[in-house]
Amino acid sequence: MTRTRLSIYDTTLRDGQQTQGVSFSTAEKQRIAAMLDQLGVDYIEGGWPGANPTDSAFFDAAPQTRAKMTAFGMTKRAGRSAANDDVLAAVMNAGTQTVCLVGKAHDFHVERALGITLEENTQNIAQSIAHLVAEGREALLDAEHFFDGYKANPAYALEVCHAAYKAGARWIVLCDTNGGTLPTEIGRITSEVIAAGIPGDHLGIHTHNDTENAIAGSLAAIDAGARQVQGTLNGLGERCGNANLTTLIPTLLLKEPYASTYEIGVTSDALKGLSRISRKLDDILNRVPMRQAAYVGASAFAHKAGLHASAILKDPSTYEHIDPALVGNARIIPMSNQAGQSNLRQRLQEAGIEVAPGDPALALILDQIKEREAIGYTYDSAQASFELLARRALGTLPDFFEVKRYKVTVERRKNKYDRMVSLSEAVVVVKVDGEKKLSVSESMDELGCDRGPVNALAKALAKDLGRYQSLIEDMRLVDFKVRITQGGTEAVTRVIIDSEDDQGHRWSTVGVSANIVDASFDALLDAIKWKLLQGA
Amino acid sequence: MTRTRLSIYDTTLRDGQQTQGVSFSTAEKQRIAAMLDQLGVDYIEGGWPGANPTDSAFFDAAPQTRAKMTAFGMTKRAGRSAANDDVLAAVMNAGTQTVCLVGKAHDFHVERALGITLEENTQNIAQSIAHLVAEGREALLDAEHFFDGYKANPAYALEVCHAAYKAGARWIVLCDTNGGTLPTEIGRITSEVIAAGIPGDHLGIHTHNDTENAIAGSLAAIDAGARQVQGTLNGLGERCGNANLTTLIPTLLLKEPYASTYEIGVTSDALKGLSRISRKLDDILNRVPMRQAAYVGASAFAHKAGLHASAILKDPSTYEHIDPALVGNARIIPMSNQAGQSNLRQRLQEAGIEVAPGDPALALILDQIKEREAIGYTYDSAQASFELLARRALGTLPDFFEVKRYKVTVERRKNKYDRMVSLSEAVVVVKVDGEKKLSVSESMDELGCDRGPVNALAKALAKDLGRYQSLIEDMRLVDFKVRITQGGTEAVTRVIIDSEDDQGHRWSTVGVSANIVDASFDALLDAIKWKLLQGA
Repeated sequence: MTRTRLSIYDTTLRDGQQTQGVSFSTAEKQRIAAMLDQLGVDYIEGGWPGANPTDSAFFDAAPQTRAKMTAFGMTKRAGRSAANDDVLAAVMNAGTQTVCLVGKAHDFHVERALGITLEENTQNIAQSIAHLVAEGREALLDAEHFFDGYKANPAYALEVCHAAYKAGARWIVLCDTNGGTLPTEIGRITSEVIAAGIPGDHLGIHTHNDTENAIAGSLAAIDAGARQVQGTLNGLGERCGNANLTTLIPTLLLKEPYASTYEIGVTSDALKGLSRISRKLDDILNRVPMRQAAYVGASAFAHKAGLHASAILKDPSTYEHIDPALVGNARIIPMSNQAGQSNLRQRLQEAGIEVAPGDPALALILDQIKEREAIGYTYDSAQASFELLARRALGTLPDFFEVKRYKVTVERRKNKYDRMVSLSEAVVVVKVDGEKKLSVSESMDELGCDRGPVNALAKALAKDLGRYQSLIEDMRLVDFKVRITQGGTEAVTRVIIDSEDDQGHRWSTVGVSANIVDASFDALLDAIKWKLLQGA
Repeated sequence: MTRTRLSIYDTTLRDGQQTQGVSFSTAEKQRIAAMLDQLGVDYIEGGWPGANPTDSAFFDAAPQTRAKMTAFGMTKRAGRSAANDDVLAAVMNAGTQTVCLVGKAHDFHVERALGITLEENTQNIAQSIAHLVAEGREALLDAEHFFDGYKANPAYALEVCHAAYKAGARWIVLCDTNGGTLPTEIGRITSEVIAAGIPGDHLGIHTHNDTENAIAGSLAAIDAGARQVQGTLNGLGERCGNANLTTLIPTLLLKEPYASTYEIGVTSDALKGLSRISRKLDDILNRVPMRQAAYVGASAFAHKAGLHASAILKDPSTYEHIDPALVGNARIIPMSNQAGQSNLRQRLQEAGIEVAPGDPALALILDQIKEREAIGYTYDSAQASFELLARRALGTLPDFFEVKRYKVTVERRKNKYDRMVSLSEAVVVVKVDGEKKLSVSESMDELGCDRGPVNALAKALAKDLGRYQSLIEDMRLVDFKVRITQGGTEAVTRVIIDSEDDQGHRWSTVGVSANIVDASFDALLDAIKWKLLQGA
């Protein structure tokens, strides 16, 4: 049986950027684009070239992707031609194969926000789309406020769609811009648009989660015949977020009737990386992953041995709607399991550590990870700390040196010019080869700027490690992420430090404590020990 | 026009307790029950009497509620009469007017998990319900795994419903226990159950959010004719959570066709308390509120002045599907670096600060925001720091007190038991009303646990502010977020602190510095000053 192709359009880098508190750097956009491409979406909307320096810089060096890299912009303004609109020109100049332009489909917004006539608006849309097509680009119309517009003035909302379609738009995207349209209504209206002559395989759906119905609304539009669906990773987006592709993709691939009716660009193999991608995005944005997230959340397959205890023990899968491994997630039940051990062996192997199946160290390592994760550690991205933990349990971690104590002072006071200045000072005492070494450093950098207590501590710790000193001279701290998590009943601080050396290594370590300086110190310590392992 | 009555059944205290990391104390259950009653739900499922000490203690002194307090339990086991089953007896002994019993509706689970015949199971259900009715109780059957059961063996799933209905069950609740049934299927199956002879006004729906469709599934069952809907506050619950009543209730009250078709026990007045209730629950559970939560999240009506800037300024309501005040929430128009004066004026107005158009202070404030954003500040979420900045520029910020200096020491060393321990100590010197005040605090909490340098600093800063002291006694730090950003050429630390007081205020402040302790101190300082402004 032939399945119908559905197109997945990701807008994490554009609409996802509207999330309160989120603003991507160009480098972050590049990393996210690579993740999306690996996942297998059809379109990556990279941003709005010309609207801000970050988006422009991203398109200046847009990554090569299998997915169609798409520039977003707005239709030309009234009173000038599409070729002479400088805002549109900046979008065209990004040189992407695909361009998506937003145009208003709600009469009220045209008249109130744009202050132009309905006819002018339709012409702006038609001429802009025609311009894209004439320039050889694939064109999308993002029909803003489509559903509210259709409810208010169906004839005009349809007119906008027809204008874009006739002008050659590959896709007309029906947007529920304020997120207020319920799924049943989205389904009905999408059917009516198709009945009015826009083919379903030219229709996209773009929903928001303001009533927690973004997924259901997207599915309703697909049921009605729309063949492109838009969303963002982890449901990023303005207000309550966009349709969550991290939920939509597994639903389309794994749940009926979608699995056997439709085909998407994401393979079952790529789907196994979904949980990892979701957590990596949160890492990049320094957000706390949602435990309860569908499919990929840490709790999504966690069974609390309350009511269902005996049934879960007999067969956990009867309480799961899918096998968690299909999305790269894992079952959590309040007892250790075999699956854990073979996963662990594989990860150790990847770090070059061979352990025989059934080795009792495996259970020990799993227990320690579980224990530490319960108090706030994470070994998802802190691969170097994971390796150190495993080697410690296996008895293959050399002692290197011992930290006897440290002390940091942070002070803010007025200087002799009556200006407030801050300065930190750290003393670290280590024992190397039986010899005690005291080092002191302050937080001032070469420019006379105070870099804070962690900087002072890092410098003091790396100042004199005796015979190991030469091994760490080429390492440097390149990123420092801090997050407050719930460890047991109290909030604790988790610090993740990324380090680098001249040999091209880049490694992450983690430290956890209610005390942010302590947590940082432990992550620094792991970073140095991992580096010493490479030289040892 | 008469509207049809829908019944709202809350299971926060029972199914919500299955959330990973959540376990209520008896006192917490009492507080939550009072909140639910105030909101106007019809049923409060209080727990399972006899299953654990907390639930038993709760029912021993169950609060008087307008809502029907409901005890949860399971149907009698095979081989004994309903009157002689001790587990059921414990449930009956709680003495509630209403009792809900779980029974299996999926043949596979009956045979595999219970290990009894299908007929025995049906009889256990019928006899248990009949027993409740004979004892004068209102009876509910929680038909576990109903949808999976119906898909596997529709005749048997229906037989279970009929048995309960004939035995006198007031409600038969169709449960999608593993959360895997999609809304369309839930709607279709619910219709078929009604067509098979169970009246819709005896049917309840109980969904889970494993595909982010718990709300849509509930609505689909209501559309099909079910007249009771179950869920939890904030969508608490096992795995991905239950249907979120905090979303369902406003949807039923405010969105069509529900608003004009159905009637529920929640009044529009009670609805205005919804955001407050949602945040209070998170407080009780010490969870960080979800900013993106539908209706009640802090970001649910936050407009980022990017793409929609001009339209939002003309009329923000056109980008909102409901008026945020209806659910006790508020609009947020964050400042961004391209925001103009009228955007600024509106945001000031919402903070109760009136500034005339063209006032030169507006340009000054915009300049300061731009300058500070360039060095890493963000005023997106730090509304309180924004207000302080504006008042400072307008000359309407009282001096309150002045910080002369501070000093923090962080130390880790071995104690006399040869264990590594950490301790921080902070000294803060402030000047209030011309008087110099030195305060010192350490980072140890009541449990003897080190909470780190920021904790010590916060305590020292809030220890003695002279005549202002009484104004800050009810404030507390509830969240602390740290992010490393690029400020100019060097990485700097941005700290955002969320604070709360007993009057229901919750406010965010921001501090930026290369020194994390300094950044935290500035955010703490702003938090206290904003609080003082409310009392001033």
